[in-house]
Amino acid sequence: MSPPSKAVFYENHGPPDTVTKSIIQLPPVEIKANDVCVKMLASPINPSDINRIEGVYPVRPPVPAVGGYEGVGEVHSVGSAVQGISPGDLVMASPPSPGTWQTHVVKDKSFWHKLDRGTPVEYAATITVNPLTAFRMMEDYVDLKSGDSIVQNGATSMVGQCVIQLAKLRGIHTINIIRDRSGSDEAKEKLKKLGADQVYTEGQLDVKNVKSLLGDVPEPALGFNCVGGNASSLVLKFLRQGGTMVTYGGMAKKPVTVSTSSFIFKELSLKGFWLQKWLGPDKTEACRETIDYLLGLIREGKLKYK
Amino acid sequence: MSPPSKAVFYENHGPPDTVTKSIIQLPPVEIKANDVCVKMLASPINPSDINRIEGVYPVRPPVPAVGGYEGVGEVHSVGSAVQGISPGDLVMASPPSPGTWQTHVVKDKSFWHKLDRGTPVEYAATITVNPLTAFRMMEDYVDLKSGDSIVQNGATSMVGQCVIQLAKLRGIHTINIIRDRSGSDEAKEKLKKLGADQVYTEGQLDVKNVKSLLGDVPEPALGFNCVGGNASSLVLKFLRQGGTMVTYGGMAKKPVTVSTSSFIFKELSLKGFWLQKWLGPDKTEACRETIDYLLGLIREGKLKYK
Repeated sequence: MSPPSKAVFYENHGPPDTVTKSIIQLPPVEIKANDVCVKMLASPINPSDINRIEGVYPVRPPVPAVGGYEGVGEVHSVGSAVQGISPGDLVMASPPSPGTWQTHVVKDKSFWHKLDRGTPVEYAATITVNPLTAFRMMEDYVDLKSGDSIVQNGATSMVGQCVIQLAKLRGIHTINIIRDRSGSDEAKEKLKKLGADQVYTEGQLDVKNVKSLLGDVPEPALGFNCVGGNASSLVLKFLRQGGTMVTYGGMAKKPVTVSTSSFIFKELSLKGFWLQKWLGPDKTEACRETIDYLLGLIREGKLKYK
Repeated sequence: MSPPSKAVFYENHGPPDTVTKSIIQLPPVEIKANDVCVKMLASPINPSDINRIEGVYPVRPPVPAVGGYEGVGEVHSVGSAVQGISPGDLVMASPPSPGTWQTHVVKDKSFWHKLDRGTPVEYAATITVNPLTAFRMMEDYVDLKSGDSIVQNGATSMVGQCVIQLAKLRGIHTINIIRDRSGSDEAKEKLKKLGADQVYTEGQLDVKNVKSLLGDVPEPALGFNCVGGNASSLVLKFLRQGGTMVTYGGMAKKPVTVSTSSFIFKELSLKGFWLQKWLGPDKTEACRETIDYLLGLIREGKLKYK
């Protein structure tokens, strides 16, 4: 049997601070032959976790449910038929799956991906949703080559920081757009230290021809939008003829607005990225390979975020 | 030498009714060995012809220029090395090229595509821009199968009428959106006679769930937008998960507005179609083959428009 598990639990969808008010204690569960019981060490709160609790996320576990989707832990005990995973091993839910906001999680061994002992826990816990999004968006839409460039808004986000560093490793330039607010100078410096080629606040881009700012940086073939509204229009303005903008978030809660001529004469394509869609049952291996690659970069000091 | 040619000519870009005020007479030109001199019979006025004269079209002939881009004519005389085209033959500019608004056009024989004698002149003159757009948009974006469906706005346009009929021939359903205006009932009847499965005015689609109207018609995988504004939002609402909207016009002069969730959760793709881009130098054969196919449908009574 597993130890009892303290869990952030919700019986109904609603505002998270109401429906997850009390942390409950779940009773011990049987550890079957192929099960692994993991003592969770860290599990992040993503905006999509909040949306799942609110009941507005298109794919969500049925209620009652335990919150959370990502997480890393230490193996507490294993079923009688489990080989290759032992108590004390560091493992993560991969592909991610619901219910990581609790102290002990018992799931079939296939749910767990074993990690090198030296992997930093705070990165392992947060590697799937945002860094994997950055990686896939750079792979799946445009065939980028060294010397090409990317434009993105929301560049201080975790995805944004990963895009900058993954691009740098491949010799790809990044043009980064951030909000106008106090601290934007410090944010610019931080992004440049990560490898950003150019960083602008939205206000700095209130010029007739944003491309005149590019200098030696080539016009980007690919853009990422996680904001919407004016910030997405700025991404579109930077894109080169035939470029693609991928939307993966809408933090400004404003729609994307596109001129007819952007479609017809500039031949832009607009698409969306949804990690949960990519993470199908056939993607377990691809997901784990990418996670291992990204965690390797982290151990080498080539990828960091906070 | 060719006969002198009366031409709609403009020396500078500007409002068409100003810059093309007088029709001029161009002097006779030499007919070289490979040239064909054509007496033009019919040449339409497309919105893009107007935009070229205004100077706002992204690709346009240098001024001074003769207007027009499509057209059909009868061969008047041929150069000494021309074989296979003789005086009296019906020919059209294919791929289309600038300068068809004149009485006699002299161009290399490679510019001309010979047509069957029985081809109706009014269709031959107008077959390239709009019907070819309809045909390519149905071929180049989504792999449509019999039983699928398409949604489009601006359905009474020439492109819209061609989409309905070409879809019908392939067993593809069409959902058609038209403006609210007097005569919309007649317009609906006309489109249904052409083969439209469903026709709605924009006002009729001011309902919470447009898809509840579909009945047995499957959710469309492909949508065409030539209007923008609310009419493009209606196309997006009809599209199924993962569907594609192709913009080829913007008659309402309003942008396309798209929610973030349409990109991320509904996984819609938005693209544009520009015939002039498709009509590259390598497309002469493909263009002529399609034109012959479309003119064949017209002769068989399977494609008509006005």
